[in-house]
Amino acid sequence: MSGSIIGKNFQVATWGESHGKALGVVIDGCPAGVPLDEADIQADLDKRKPGQSPFSTARKEADHVEILSGVFEGRTTGTPISMLIWNTDARSPDYSEIAKYYRPGHADYTYDQKYGFRDYRGGGRSSGRETAARVAAGAVAKKVLSELGIRVMSYTLSIGNIFIDRSNFDASEIYKNNVRMPDHEAARRAEEFLAEIKACGDSAGGIVECVVEGLPAGVGEPVFEKLDAMLARAVMSLGAVKGVEFGNGFEASRLKGSENNDIMYFDDAGNLGKFSNNSGGISGGISEGFPIILRAAIKPTPSIYKSQKTVSTNGENIDIIIKGRHDPVIVPRAVIAVEAMVAITLVDYLLQRILSRMDLVKKALT
Amino acid sequence: MSGSIIGKNFQVATWGESHGKALGVVIDGCPAGVPLDEADIQADLDKRKPGQSPFSTARKEADHVEILSGVFEGRTTGTPISMLIWNTDARSPDYSEIAKYYRPGHADYTYDQKYGFRDYRGGGRSSGRETAARVAAGAVAKKVLSELGIRVMSYTLSIGNIFIDRSNFDASEIYKNNVRMPDHEAARRAEEFLAEIKACGDSAGGIVECVVEGLPAGVGEPVFEKLDAMLARAVMSLGAVKGVEFGNGFEASRLKGSENNDIMYFDDAGNLGKFSNNSGGISGGISEGFPIILRAAIKPTPSIYKSQKTVSTNGENIDIIIKGRHDPVIVPRAVIAVEAMVAITLVDYLLQRILSRMDLVKKALT
Amino acid sequence: MSGSIIGKNFQVATWGESHGKALGVVIDGCPAGVPLDEADIQADLDKRKPGQSPFSTARKEADHVEILSGVFEGRTTGTPISMLIWNTDARSPDYSEIAKYYRPGHADYTYDQKYGFRDYRGGGRSSGRETAARVAAGAVAKKVLSELGIRVMSYTLSIGNIFIDRSNFDASEIYKNNVRMPDHEAARRAEEFLAEIKACGDSAGGIVECVVEGLPAGVGEPVFEKLDAMLARAVMSLGAVKGVEFGNGFEASRLKGSENNDIMYFDDAGNLGKFSNNSGGISGGISEGFPIILRAAIKPTPSIYKSQKTVSTNGENIDIIIKGRHDPVIVPRAVIAVEAMVAITLVDYLLQRILSRMDLVKKALT
Amino acid sequence: MSGSIIGKNFQVATWGESHGKALGVVIDGCPAGVPLDEADIQADLDKRKPGQSPFSTARKEADHVEILSGVFEGRTTGTPISMLIWNTDARSPDYSEIAKYYRPGHADYTYDQKYGFRDYRGGGRSSGRETAARVAAGAVAKKVLSELGIRVMSYTLSIGNIFIDRSNFDASEIYKNNVRMPDHEAARRAEEFLAEIKACGDSAGGIVECVVEGLPAGVGEPVFEKLDAMLARAVMSLGAVKGVEFGNGFEASRLKGSENNDIMYFDDAGNLGKFSNNSGGISGGISEGFPIILRAAIKPTPSIYKSQKTVSTNGENIDIIIKGRHDPVIVPRAVIAVEAMVAITLVDYLLQRILSRMDLVKKALT
Repeated sequence: MSGSIIGKNFQVATWGESHGKALGVVIDGCPAGVPLDEADIQADLDKRKPGQSPFSTARKEADHVEILSGVFEGRTTGTPISMLIWNTDARSPDYSEIAKYYRPGHADYTYDQKYGFRDYRGGGRSSGRETAARVAAGAVAKKVLSELGIRVMSYTLSIGNIFIDRSNFDASEIYKNNVRMPDHEAARRAEEFLAEIKACGDSAGGIVECVVEGLPAGVGEPVFEKLDAMLARAVMSLGAVKGVEFGNGFEASRLKGSENNDIMYFDDAGNLGKFSNNSGGISGGISEGFPIILRAAIKPTPSIYKSQKTVSTNGENIDIIIKGRHDPVIVPRAVIAVEAMVAITLVDYLLQRILSRMDLVKKALT
Repeated sequence: MSGSIIGKNFQVATWGESHGKALGVVIDGCPAGVPLDEADIQADLDKRKPGQSPFSTARKEADHVEILSGVFEGRTTGTPISMLIWNTDARSPDYSEIAKYYRPGHADYTYDQKYGFRDYRGGGRSSGRETAARVAAGAVAKKVLSELGIRVMSYTLSIGNIFIDRSNFDASEIYKNNVRMPDHEAARRAEEFLAEIKACGDSAGGIVECVVEGLPAGVGEPVFEKLDAMLARAVMSLGAVKGVEFGNGFEASRLKGSENNDIMYFDDAGNLGKFSNNSGGISGGISEGFPIILRAAIKPTPSIYKSQKTVSTNGENIDIIIKGRHDPVIVPRAVIAVEAMVAITLVDYLLQRILSRMDLVKKALT
Repeated sequence: MSGSIIGKNFQVATWGESHGKALGVVIDGCPAGVPLDEADIQADLDKRKPGQSPFSTARKEADHVEILSGVFEGRTTGTPISMLIWNTDARSPDYSEIAKYYRPGHADYTYDQKYGFRDYRGGGRSSGRETAARVAAGAVAKKVLSELGIRVMSYTLSIGNIFIDRSNFDASEIYKNNVRMPDHEAARRAEEFLAEIKACGDSAGGIVECVVEGLPAGVGEPVFEKLDAMLARAVMSLGAVKGVEFGNGFEASRLKGSENNDIMYFDDAGNLGKFSNNSGGISGGISEGFPIILRAAIKPTPSIYKSQKTVSTNGENIDIIIKGRHDPVIVPRAVIAVEAMVAITLVDYLLQRILSRMDLVKKALT
Repeated sequence: MSGSIIGKNFQVATWGESHGKALGVVIDGCPAGVPLDEADIQADLDKRKPGQSPFSTARKEADHVEILSGVFEGRTTGTPISMLIWNTDARSPDYSEIAKYYRPGHADYTYDQKYGFRDYRGGGRSSGRETAARVAAGAVAKKVLSELGIRVMSYTLSIGNIFIDRSNFDASEIYKNNVRMPDHEAARRAEEFLAEIKACGDSAGGIVECVVEGLPAGVGEPVFEKLDAMLARAVMSLGAVKGVEFGNGFEASRLKGSENNDIMYFDDAGNLGKFSNNSGGISGGISEGFPIILRAAIKPTPSIYKSQKTVSTNGENIDIIIKGRHDPVIVPRAVIAVEAMVAITLVDYLLQRILSRMDLVKKALT
């Protein structure tokens, strides 16, 4: 219970440090009978792995996943699925300097305060590398969702002040550019901006948006386990996320009720529709059967190549220049991590949803 | 596990419907030996109770709390604290109309989808009235925090487009005006704005800000139980919250790393300081020992007196005018609810914090 | 998390002290749509309530239950069910003496050690009276089970050395005698024995047996949440239980594999049968579809009217005679409490069972 | 949540099948700063590993453990400890026959019922081999306990009808004989008995006893998380255990209160003592500060070499002779597994114990 396990029905436990031997994840509670092989997982890991663009760290990791348990003859068995990724390009000596001071914007100081000491090699457990294990689990979650016709899509909405133009939205574009934007032109401008930022030794942030389609109504629990609350927690647990909002989000605080309320209607064919989706597809914490929409604000990478002031572990004010390999922007690599956290949470509450009605319970059991 | 229990060390279970017999909460895991009496709880309930301003519902509820267990001779015993609030002004007939259609912006439709039917009296379990139980639990949590020198303060940052001026910040002002703003002049303008909104039969939203002082460094867990993730979940679980952010929040996505990084320093007296608090007091999910800052976007009350289109439960497009008693703005009453959710979460992770270090464990046990 | 919440899908939180204002229970996770009214609960509470035989305490409690939430128009709504029982015959002065010493066989000493002080009135939270709340929750659980055709039956197997004769087994007899034995003759002898014990100011123990019929195969989880493990925990959590066993239990340790293995067969009609049920209906922690059988050893009531040696809270060796009202045997009243704990656990794992197979998940959701 | 995670503070998640690639365990919640290396773990695994006596399976497994995370410079970091054991002598072809029928006394039938299919290779997840991961976690738990001066010792009390003579008790003997008995003479007779049983192709069971010394008073929670309840659950979750009892256990049901009550006294030096330990060191679910005593009944190994009747997966009554490698008795190998489960549970509730008192919380935090 040091916080590395998430979920109640679909439980995901990750482990591993940035420069330890390996990273991994154990999933307990994946239903039996889901088709699964390593290629399913690898596809998502490849979207996150480093070294794919000029804007990601130069660390070389194949991020090759092995499934060690829980799958038999191509299907999940209902027992824990253990997945392992060996670290192959850990260069701990790069980090020996870091042991002596606290990097601005990193968790070095808080880990020391919390635990009394820390694994300083590349941030240890607080490294963004930890998200590889989440992405592996997210890929399994997405397999479960796809059995039920549910699709999760995430992409970069903005880098710095450069936002996509929604009128140019093209989902097929997302994995064609280095910034994961569904807008060719915005992506081009964002790449130019990042090239400048990188040249200055600085870094940038951005916003990731995630859309879920095909989710039936009735998912999410009242009160403390509202679907938006649990999604916010899951996404906010990614280290660089500083804010999360649903539907029109913070904008809602400025509107009148008559402007903000989504109006439902039946169309001529008798299908239920909404004139707007300000709610982001969730009312009272429960899915409406319309698309879920959330956004996560990602801060700029704290590791920059510029000189910075900070304090040393022995109590001095010092100037530092951080060495090592790091990303001038992590938004593009965060896209698949956000998607993973959303997928993991959705499976958890889809399973939970069944248990909330005696008629569904009877239907399943008889 | 239908979502009405939160926390792992300090567990809070709420129950009750808006127009049922009573509301209540059971706290399991409050340490033994905390001084507690009903007046401590009542003070916070009084900050939330209806009918205190022209901008809150006309429903009359004393919201009188009774402690039924877990306290002996003025101190908590370590066993469950059960608290109960009787509903006294429930007028269910007001709501008989509502059974026949789905109010825009409410959870009527999603509850029907989830459970197959719903307690339609005043929103049943999805009513904001449910937060009275949270506020009672929050008051207990704040007693625990005060034993450790930790203070939680929340207030209204904005109503619609009217924001407080931080240069006028005056904490003593918060409970002197009807909108809970720590700025006399902004409060005056917000009240004028709300009077207009109310006259039109419409409603408004706003932003609540919460600041925690005195929290030591080292609170929060890595990975999935980051302090910001758990606070976001807790606050987002309040029905009207559409977004949560920490420190500079969404603004961080637009900054460069060199602008966004908080720089720590030792002052002449050897005390650790920071030149900025963009992080909102949390790094890597763990408290830094500096103030925690979070903001929650509250949507406008969905119940308005204007005519609205919607769908009926039997499949028709209809026009409705909602009767009953409701608030033209809930932001002022949400202030203490946000504070409660933050306090509950902090106690949970303060307790957890002890368990993360063998030296603290030994210190406590020997 | 001080231990007063049990279950993961069907969560039961009890609260209340023996001589506090009231006792109660909150159930979170009961599926929506289960028919439920107070009479269902009262029937089981009446089986546990004191003062019904010469062998139970003279304390007079109506143990009248009120349902305060979670039920609407005669059916559960899926939200928390809160139930309350007022204490009406608490006589705290009886217990003022007890504050000064530690009663042998009671939890007085351990509560003081754990919490630093204790609610000494009638044992406070450690009193057997706490089981009233469990029985109320168990009655709800049995309503859920009955929707699925599952029956739980418990009875007294032995009092002291007097065991029922299985060849005389008559279920209709259980609630006709004062000792809850399904054997008229054994009950008669047990009552005689208890009359003698009571006359001496002493007390007796016994064994409760519980049988579950109609439970489908496939209930229970592998490894740490085996059905027998979770049932053992649930039943052992009743204060007076010192041992739990399944099927032939401890006897299995003396048999050979060839004697102990249950052999399955198909009968002429093609139905699956077993020649024996040494397993008690559970293999590998998962129900077989045959009856579940468990036994719980109940210790003699620790409160006796004889003079006993013990220690005082201020460090002296003393002789005491306990006053107050107590049962010379609690086995008959424990029968319904064991049944409640079994029912609560079964509902929890029946719900869980659905989530373990993708085909059941799809069946429920589509 | 398919049951492979145990604990709330010290959480243990195991994974792996008998004939899969590997087995492993992730521990989340081990306090930071505990000295730990692989040799600590290996020592316990060596006590469980197969092939060490004529009475254990001929399967050859080095059971070599690797720590993959959570330890830095010889101490735990507070983050998840991942441990892995490769399977090296899996011979799946031995088990191809087993796919076609249900072995008596095994979980083959129940797994098929639960999941719709099963990994039939050596029992898959239901194999006793799964306990290797528990033993590894138990070794870590014992390191934590040893930091606090707490010792857990387990041994064989009986094999079949051969019991140790308590007057010959010699702890140093336990790991000197093949049956883990603390009595040289009883061990000799048990080995003779087992040689006969083995010669007949049959199997035997027995009883394991576990004693905990040095545990302070105040550990365990009231009501549903009584220390005995949680220990019973932990030990009963070992596949072959059919009953668990504490102190005098089932014998208590036959005694009078005046015989069964343990009497406490202060000796001349002012130390607290007890004249008996019928309670097994736990009152009201909370440790007394006296030794904890529990016993677990282990059934005879269900795999025997004799011909047995059973049913096939395609609905026929058949006769089988099970091939493969199996133990004529598993009691000696279960000894360390019981010890592991007890140690894991104790650490969990020792940590929990701190949180139950405000004075301990303050002591740790300030």
